[in-house]
Amino acid sequence: MQAREEATAMPDCGVIRVAMTAAAEAYDVHVGADVLDRLPAMLRQAAPAFRYAVISDDHVAHLYGSELIRCLREDSLTVDLFTFPSGEANKTRETWSALTDAILGAGVGRDACIIGLGGGVTGDVAGFVAATYMRGIPVVHVPTSLLAMLDASVGGKTGVDVDAGKNLVGAFIQPRVVLADTTVLRTLSDSDFRAGLAEAVKHGFIADLRHLEWIERHGRDILERDPGHLVELVRTSVAIKAAIVTEDPFEIGRRATLNFGHTIGHALERVSRYSIPHGYAVAAGMVVECRIGEILGVSAPDTASRLLAVLYSLGIPVMLPDVVDDVVEATRSDKKGRASSVRYALVARPGQGARTGAGGWTFEVQPEVVRTALRAALVALSQENTGV
Amino acid sequence: MQAREEATAMPDCGVIRVAMTAAAEAYDVHVGADVLDRLPAMLRQAAPAFRYAVISDDHVAHLYGSELIRCLREDSLTVDLFTFPSGEANKTRETWSALTDAILGAGVGRDACIIGLGGGVTGDVAGFVAATYMRGIPVVHVPTSLLAMLDASVGGKTGVDVDAGKNLVGAFIQPRVVLADTTVLRTLSDSDFRAGLAEAVKHGFIADLRHLEWIERHGRDILERDPGHLVELVRTSVAIKAAIVTEDPFEIGRRATLNFGHTIGHALERVSRYSIPHGYAVAAGMVVECRIGEILGVSAPDTASRLLAVLYSLGIPVMLPDVVDDVVEATRSDKKGRASSVRYALVARPGQGARTGAGGWTFEVQPEVVRTALRAALVALSQENTGV
Repeated sequence: MQAREEATAMPDCGVIRVAMTAAAEAYDVHVGADVLDRLPAMLRQAAPAFRYAVISDDHVAHLYGSELIRCLREDSLTVDLFTFPSGEANKTRETWSALTDAILGAGVGRDACIIGLGGGVTGDVAGFVAATYMRGIPVVHVPTSLLAMLDASVGGKTGVDVDAGKNLVGAFIQPRVVLADTTVLRTLSDSDFRAGLAEAVKHGFIADLRHLEWIERHGRDILERDPGHLVELVRTSVAIKAAIVTEDPFEIGRRATLNFGHTIGHALERVSRYSIPHGYAVAAGMVVECRIGEILGVSAPDTASRLLAVLYSLGIPVMLPDVVDDVVEATRSDKKGRASSVRYALVARPGQGARTGAGGWTFEVQPEVVRTALRAALVALSQENTGV
Repeated sequence: MQAREEATAMPDCGVIRVAMTAAAEAYDVHVGADVLDRLPAMLRQAAPAFRYAVISDDHVAHLYGSELIRCLREDSLTVDLFTFPSGEANKTRETWSALTDAILGAGVGRDACIIGLGGGVTGDVAGFVAATYMRGIPVVHVPTSLLAMLDASVGGKTGVDVDAGKNLVGAFIQPRVVLADTTVLRTLSDSDFRAGLAEAVKHGFIADLRHLEWIERHGRDILERDPGHLVELVRTSVAIKAAIVTEDPFEIGRRATLNFGHTIGHALERVSRYSIPHGYAVAAGMVVECRIGEILGVSAPDTASRLLAVLYSLGIPVMLPDVVDDVVEATRSDKKGRASSVRYALVARPGQGARTGAGGWTFEVQPEVVRTALRAALVALSQENTGV
């Protein structure tokens, strides 16, 4: 049939080439103390729009929503606030639908811009609303948690959770601008603050020994939330992440290193039914994945012990439930799983992500190795806890 | 505050530039008779994947689903079929959710590719599933309706309908390849076939007088669905649309001309509660929008009458419900509405889209003009129908 077809004279078949060009997307992440009132000027410059729709959860909306709305309205911008119930449990398609319908109901058109005001959940939801609202309108992130500032608001990943797993439905959408006002970090709970620190430690571990050493040296100032140290912490982490996602926007190479700690981390979140905060789950996940690397000979010896030391010095708890088989099973439905195997981003040593012999950034790890690493980590943690 | 901040020495503030590059996306649209069995080779070349998930509605799945699955499996590709109930009424977030969950439930990972097999609704739904599945996996379109072949499968628009209007939730995702086998058009219902012809007429009207003249000359061969004429019809329309979307992928300029007939068309669909097929609604919409253009002096005189003549020669009914105010009201929630006004893509004359004095491609039209045009079109149609 094919041969006949190719032998047939035109116009019986034809090929039309559609050559779409995509514009490069560049944006600035502004990090500073007391910079929130710069937002109107930034919006006018980087995200001019006829209307602005602020998306926030009810908790953050209560703290900063009216201040933000007032700040924008004083500058004669048209803006409305749309809220949803706070918490990872509400990072769902239902929340996304309800917000979309509310914004549509308010008559917001294509010439609008979404502003995500809040933590990682809000950034993910607001970004996904923007990515799919009338096939995509601009988004601006105003992160209010440490985790969102140094991680979630950079790189364009958005999404919601479904029964089958976290972030399995979503889109890539780069923000027009990000404004991280570190002053708001001073009112963050200790738990949320420390959960965010875990991602900063990750940035040091996968890409920048100096950042790790700076964190190790300045643990006390960081924990006391000294303004200058907060700015430095966020700025360096954002720069590290920005360098990685710039190099590999669609996660076909080095960007996978950002998943260090996350394969086990997501599994821990799932088996705990999300009772372990994301940052803490990643902290424990990094510990286990360091052990995996050590077992495979990919990570230098004592990588895990240095990680544990810095986590303890920052007061980040390493919580590992004693359900090894459940955790291993939960890793198998993570979307980073390629074909039927599960692949892990590992570190070669503190400050450097590991590469495979073939130049890749992820390693296929057999379930038995994961089990061994989990058991080893459990033993090490119980010894710490009992002072052995 | 800003002045103080800018005067402060580092590290109290900082800006990190994130420069994302986006790859250009080019793909081929293959148009021909009996070309379906080329699909496996095309997939291997343009969309290699570990698994393929075919999305189709139950009607098309019954006609072509098993043939397609067999064809791919014979070539040792791993493929599964996922169906949803046919009809525009099912182009919803609920269908999108259910398909996503079914594909997740089958363990399909990121290294998969979606194949949309069906008409415009299927292409829209399958594309939106692909665009949001694990933040985006590749999609291939195998359109089976004339409308989908010459319009919906090119340009990357996907989406679903919500209460507030059609296609208000969606994404842009360019397919990896499109395979239009014109043989399947021979089994299409007259109604579906003619609805598709309306979009071909639109392509002629907005961009290519020769295509319009060719359609006017070959109406009989087209209606008899002569294989060679079907290929020529689809190929030329696809080439016209491809040229337009290539020039303006994100609809900031000329691409808006493709909306000719659609502002009124979508309003007609809404007020009829989608009982008027999309192609027929666009046909009537084009007639009204020609009248609008004539009233404004944007369209040459007799543009509407030439349009009516070619529509009648192709047996495309022009159905215009006698509810002028409802139609005008329904245009106001269309997403093409910019700010509070409603903008229309118009034609200067048959074969040429109209530009504004400022070089734009859409015109702001006052509701009163729309009302006048609707009434004029109703009068003209009633005269046709009564033989006056």
